[in-house]
Amino acid sequence: MINFSVLEVKGRITSKWCDLKMIAELIMVGTELLLGEIVDTNSNYLAEELAAIGVDLFYVTKVGDNQQRIARLIQNAFTRADIVITSGGLGPTSDDLTKEAAAEALGRDLVLCPKALKSIEARFQRMHAAMSQNNKRQAYLPEGSQALHNPKGTAPGVLVETQDGKALIMLPGVPVELKAIMRDSVIPYIANKAAGANGIIFSQILRFYGLGESRLEELIKDLLVTQSNPTIAPYAGSGEVRVRITAKADTQETAESLIAPVEKELLGRIGEYFYGYGEAGMETVVGNLLINKGQTIAVAESCTGGLISNLLTNVPGSSDYYMQGAVTYSNLAKETVLGVDPRLIEDYGAVSEQTAKAMALGVRQWAGTDIGLGITGIAGPGGGTSAKPVGLVYFSLSSSEKEIVDKRVFSGDRLQIKERAALAALDLVRRHLLSLGN
Amino acid sequence: MINFSVLEVKGRITSKWCDLKMIAELIMVGTELLLGEIVDTNSNYLAEELAAIGVDLFYVTKVGDNQQRIARLIQNAFTRADIVITSGGLGPTSDDLTKEAAAEALGRDLVLCPKALKSIEARFQRMHAAMSQNNKRQAYLPEGSQALHNPKGTAPGVLVETQDGKALIMLPGVPVELKAIMRDSVIPYIANKAAGANGIIFSQILRFYGLGESRLEELIKDLLVTQSNPTIAPYAGSGEVRVRITAKADTQETAESLIAPVEKELLGRIGEYFYGYGEAGMETVVGNLLINKGQTIAVAESCTGGLISNLLTNVPGSSDYYMQGAVTYSNLAKETVLGVDPRLIEDYGAVSEQTAKAMALGVRQWAGTDIGLGITGIAGPGGGTSAKPVGLVYFSLSSSEKEIVDKRVFSGDRLQIKERAALAALDLVRRHLLSLGN
Repeated sequence: MINFSVLEVKGRITSKWCDLKMIAELIMVGTELLLGEIVDTNSNYLAEELAAIGVDLFYVTKVGDNQQRIARLIQNAFTRADIVITSGGLGPTSDDLTKEAAAEALGRDLVLCPKALKSIEARFQRMHAAMSQNNKRQAYLPEGSQALHNPKGTAPGVLVETQDGKALIMLPGVPVELKAIMRDSVIPYIANKAAGANGIIFSQILRFYGLGESRLEELIKDLLVTQSNPTIAPYAGSGEVRVRITAKADTQETAESLIAPVEKELLGRIGEYFYGYGEAGMETVVGNLLINKGQTIAVAESCTGGLISNLLTNVPGSSDYYMQGAVTYSNLAKETVLGVDPRLIEDYGAVSEQTAKAMALGVRQWAGTDIGLGITGIAGPGGGTSAKPVGLVYFSLSSSEKEIVDKRVFSGDRLQIKERAALAALDLVRRHLLSLGN
Repeated sequence: MINFSVLEVKGRITSKWCDLKMIAELIMVGTELLLGEIVDTNSNYLAEELAAIGVDLFYVTKVGDNQQRIARLIQNAFTRADIVITSGGLGPTSDDLTKEAAAEALGRDLVLCPKALKSIEARFQRMHAAMSQNNKRQAYLPEGSQALHNPKGTAPGVLVETQDGKALIMLPGVPVELKAIMRDSVIPYIANKAAGANGIIFSQILRFYGLGESRLEELIKDLLVTQSNPTIAPYAGSGEVRVRITAKADTQETAESLIAPVEKELLGRIGEYFYGYGEAGMETVVGNLLINKGQTIAVAESCTGGLISNLLTNVPGSSDYYMQGAVTYSNLAKETVLGVDPRLIEDYGAVSEQTAKAMALGVRQWAGTDIGLGITGIAGPGGGTSAKPVGLVYFSLSSSEKEIVDKRVFSGDRLQIKERAALAALDLVRRHLLSLGN
């Protein structure tokens, strides 16, 4: 239907843009958002995607499941934006009212969309589940709408074009569904709408681990001040920082040639913290390195309780290099499973450099892998002492050539300490793999 | 200053309310919020606090650092709310424009507030830092304002009362500062404003696993239609559904007596899916049951890759019942670690009822625990066949008295299948524990 090319280079989307900047507005629907029960991450995702294709965003509004209020917001949004995107309120229950509100705002009826109904029915058949009358409601769309295929759920997205060339796009509130429809249908649509485009926006994300956002900003302050094309935007991720370099140009080649010197300058300054490009997280980077270096890994976890294995196995295809893991929470498990000497634990404690080393070696021998990783620490809230406080974590990596041991003290609550320790452990593996010859 | 009591029962907050419900509106200021660089958690915190003191919230808007747009939003908010709270834009730099916008919206001048200036100066003295001219800007407030002490930072909060008895409250965007001013000044102020308060709002959350949101709504539709006091609100969580019952009454006792029959009615209809109250997730419920029944557990995971162990060990104190876990991704690991008979895997496959049972038994014997849990399946995206599709998962629980085995087919992507399988496995453990005598 739409002839639109999306190029993916090092993980970032390149898309058409036009000088006449489009303005978008977001309406996030759901009473739960107004009760503080759910953190709205959808609007951040949408804001980032819109920024990446050069669309301006001036307002984001959260509103409850109230038809009249949603309708008024949609009307108001069209007084100041070209594209209005809603999230949520497309579900099967009676408090899902976004389509009703849209119909009210646009003065149209809700009519049955046979294509949407078919797709919903097919989904229930695949799941061998009975379809309720409520689910049929999800196939009613404002007159003149187009259903946007939802590869991840029941509710289709909805696109309605107004007579003055503006567009209302309704997306489900479930993040994986919203993202899938954005990627497959909405981003291509918006980019195509910016017709007559005679240039592209190209952006590159660099990911860094091990330095904070304010330190990063200090180190590249002069670049941030003088930037114009490309622009440089640092932002904090979970336990890491990212820098997005965005160039506008006539061709991708030109955009890349604008970005290259800036990327080089950045890496010259903070390259030691750089770990990857684009959307690939640390576990993916480590996974790719394991494949490239032909190495296998096994993990013995105490304080991280399975999180590192869980992250590694989140990557499709990880069974090629991840062989097995042990969560040895009790001392007995450390001894019987990993062969950690009980006297070691007695002399130095379960949370010690010595135990971490014995765990790494033990898990490598137990699993017969190239690399063994051992993590032991105190995730809290209990169990800390002044000598060994909550947040103290020992890491060890064992391979046939060498043995590494590292110690860190993390701040935060139990879950944050687990997360930070897991990321640090994966970074240790990454650095080890980089140090290997090919 | 204000005598205000907050009670916590079964995890839910009970607080004062008044019949004349106040309506609040939030305006979150900052261009970074519109670029998706920062997840706005302030509005969630504010929404929760307002809900807890019985103040209604209908709209939350995010807007950039643009004086005119902020001013228009403030004016618009006062057409539909009694209290308008802004977050952000009180800093010392030239793009901090919230007070300027407020002055414009209210038709007042910005004047130097000597009290605010003194407090800023004192802060710089304590920090032994030089105060810039920009920081002095932070002491200029709209005429007739009151500075709200900021114990955590430089920018004071600002309270402006309008002639028709409404209030504009401006808070800094830094979460710790915003929270401190809310707690010390704003919540007492709002609670006091709801003068003549003579009652409480009490709410109870029931959590259900194993039925979808639309099915739940069908089963309790008549209750949802006729509700008034208490109100009943279902909402979907991650892989589960929750129902919040909220009562208004003079005393907590009365509120509880209003909720009790509704809770009983709900449990009479969908009690088989009920698993817990309030904020405690499935892993916490299972953890508490393990403690109560004096049982220990070990987990052998294949497709969930460590997620179940990770969830169980997210609970503080889990080392009392969670002993150890194995992530046996490879067939060899299943055989050598858990003692799964290689012929079993050859005959029935690694993803089979037989292998799941052998894993559960194997991990129980290996760890010497009361319960062994074994999970094997296909998380995808690769590895599926028509006989064994992506999403197929076998679960088994082994104890000295019995052996349970279950089979499910989950939809979703790799991470969703892992999550859904982990939740189903924990529910299997929960049901087994409930079936045990004390």
